[in-house]
Amino acid sequence: MNEFELIDRHFRREARDASVRVGVGDDAAVLAPSAGAELVLAVDMMVEGRHFLPGADPEALGHKVLAVNLSDLAAMGARPRWALLALALPDDDDAWLAAFSRGLHALAGEHGVELVGGDTTRGPRNLCVTIAGEVPEGQAIRRGGANAGDDLWVSGTLGDAMLGLAALEGRVTLDAQSLADCVARLARPAPRVALGSALRGVASAMLDVSDGLTGDLGHLCAASRVGADIDLAAIPRCGALDRMLRGEARAAALAALVAGGDDYELLFAAPVANRERVAAAGRAGGVAVTRIGRIVVGSGIAVRDECGVPIDPLPRAFDHFATA
Amino acid sequence: MNEFELIDRHFRREARDASVRVGVGDDAAVLAPSAGAELVLAVDMMVEGRHFLPGADPEALGHKVLAVNLSDLAAMGARPRWALLALALPDDDDAWLAAFSRGLHALAGEHGVELVGGDTTRGPRNLCVTIAGEVPEGQAIRRGGANAGDDLWVSGTLGDAMLGLAALEGRVTLDAQSLADCVARLARPAPRVALGSALRGVASAMLDVSDGLTGDLGHLCAASRVGADIDLAAIPRCGALDRMLRGEARAAALAALVAGGDDYELLFAAPVANRERVAAAGRAGGVAVTRIGRIVVGSGIAVRDECGVPIDPLPRAFDHFATA
Repeated sequence: MNEFELIDRHFRREARDASVRVGVGDDAAVLAPSAGAELVLAVDMMVEGRHFLPGADPEALGHKVLAVNLSDLAAMGARPRWALLALALPDDDDAWLAAFSRGLHALAGEHGVELVGGDTTRGPRNLCVTIAGEVPEGQAIRRGGANAGDDLWVSGTLGDAMLGLAALEGRVTLDAQSLADCVARLARPAPRVALGSALRGVASAMLDVSDGLTGDLGHLCAASRVGADIDLAAIPRCGALDRMLRGEARAAALAALVAGGDDYELLFAAPVANRERVAAAGRAGGVAVTRIGRIVVGSGIAVRDECGVPIDPLPRAFDHFATA
Repeated sequence: MNEFELIDRHFRREARDASVRVGVGDDAAVLAPSAGAELVLAVDMMVEGRHFLPGADPEALGHKVLAVNLSDLAAMGARPRWALLALALPDDDDAWLAAFSRGLHALAGEHGVELVGGDTTRGPRNLCVTIAGEVPEGQAIRRGGANAGDDLWVSGTLGDAMLGLAALEGRVTLDAQSLADCVARLARPAPRVALGSALRGVASAMLDVSDGLTGDLGHLCAASRVGADIDLAAIPRCGALDRMLRGEARAAALAALVAGGDDYELLFAAPVANRERVAAAGRAGGVAVTRIGRIVVGSGIAVRDECGVPIDPLPRAFDHFATA
């Protein structure tokens, strides 16, 4: 099968959205923007052996590579609209591509996103999605808007994805239900798109937790020139992680909770006066929102344990270029 | 050096364009579109060992990975504005990154393109650029607009890049000047952005020649539901290729001319009545434009030799997924 047949078979769909003036199959896609909107663009690359193992479920990969991009747009309060897919593949395994495109198209359909173009080539497996979306002019939620005194919030629960990974690698043992839940969080993260949009005009600063709570919070604090004070007890977690935190596996649980990557929850600051509006945004977004601390003057991040004592040293955030 | 330091050092520049509301360093870029414009998006992925050899000059790679994307936008008649860069790298070689980003930024600067975001990760070397640009509403030049009777045109010269590759691989011998010229065409293609824009309202259909003349012309013909008749003698070529075509290396020269990839010239159809306007667009674009044949009723592509006889079989176009 050649490149053009591959594209035709798996990625060319009739566009359902009138904004797509030219879709897959020309030199570039041509799209009609909404009046009064700014364009929001992000790209994420997933590499076999780094972000996923050889043999990983292709349908879940199709979901995840789009999900991490949707999460980036959610973190700006933007509405995702169009995606491009660049793929390097070691072979033209038709069943792999069918499952991959099924996972991608299913999540795209859930969020009204159209796949409008891409590129395929032979090479070590590499999945790269570009997402384009829109936000009303001037309303994007940036990292740099947090102020001392703001509450610090997070959606959903943290640490599940890292716990799932640890279980898959045999480093922790989970009951069957917890294992299934945590592996699902790792394999098929749910981008918080509706919550992100609902937080426009409510949150003062936001990003998504992809590299771990303290690492990503560090970026928010640096951009906002503030510090943060977190209560460990307040960080939302699943039951398995909560039990680990109270037992012998406390160190591993702590690492998953404050430094575990791949959760794709939204971490945001909001003025104290907006607590009711944050709660309403959580309801609109269909996900729990939890107040985990506050933004403070300064530059450091403290995570206080159950006795109010800052944990020192904090487990380190995941970094793709850090030496293991 | 970690991922964030890498990004800071090599890719974060102060945006010179007021359209960039949020650039590198947030979850996504936020950009202000022009009134009355449609958005044009394309992505290209270049893989080590497939599109370039290990040890290839990183500055030239930085140029080329952006150039091939600019060429896609040129082929739509669009103005490129913003780029995203996703990189997988086997190491954090600072000198490599410095040279790569120098090549990328130099070409971006020439075309007024801002690098507004990206992603870096560890992995087999893979360079993926997404380009976003604009075209006045309804004026994108598609592949499907050619009509029987239209002239068929191409910019610049064809076959140089493939000739350069053949010389580097020791399959042909070139004089020093031809070698330098052809290798430069391969390593640092010049995207025909100004020509592409100047052809809005003039060309009826257009694409760029990345996979070879007959292969890419096949896409234009299929989209337009027409055939094409080309005069071999009219296809613009460099002196070295012209000499080869008249000697013992005719077969290799023919392959380079009609099936050689990587030239990134524009191939377009235009009504006969627009000949003067095409010539003016060539002058505006600073590149020669040559009439090489005509669009005909039907579906086949004929390349007629110096005696008017169709060449049969035609050399095959390059295909990333074809079996060698």
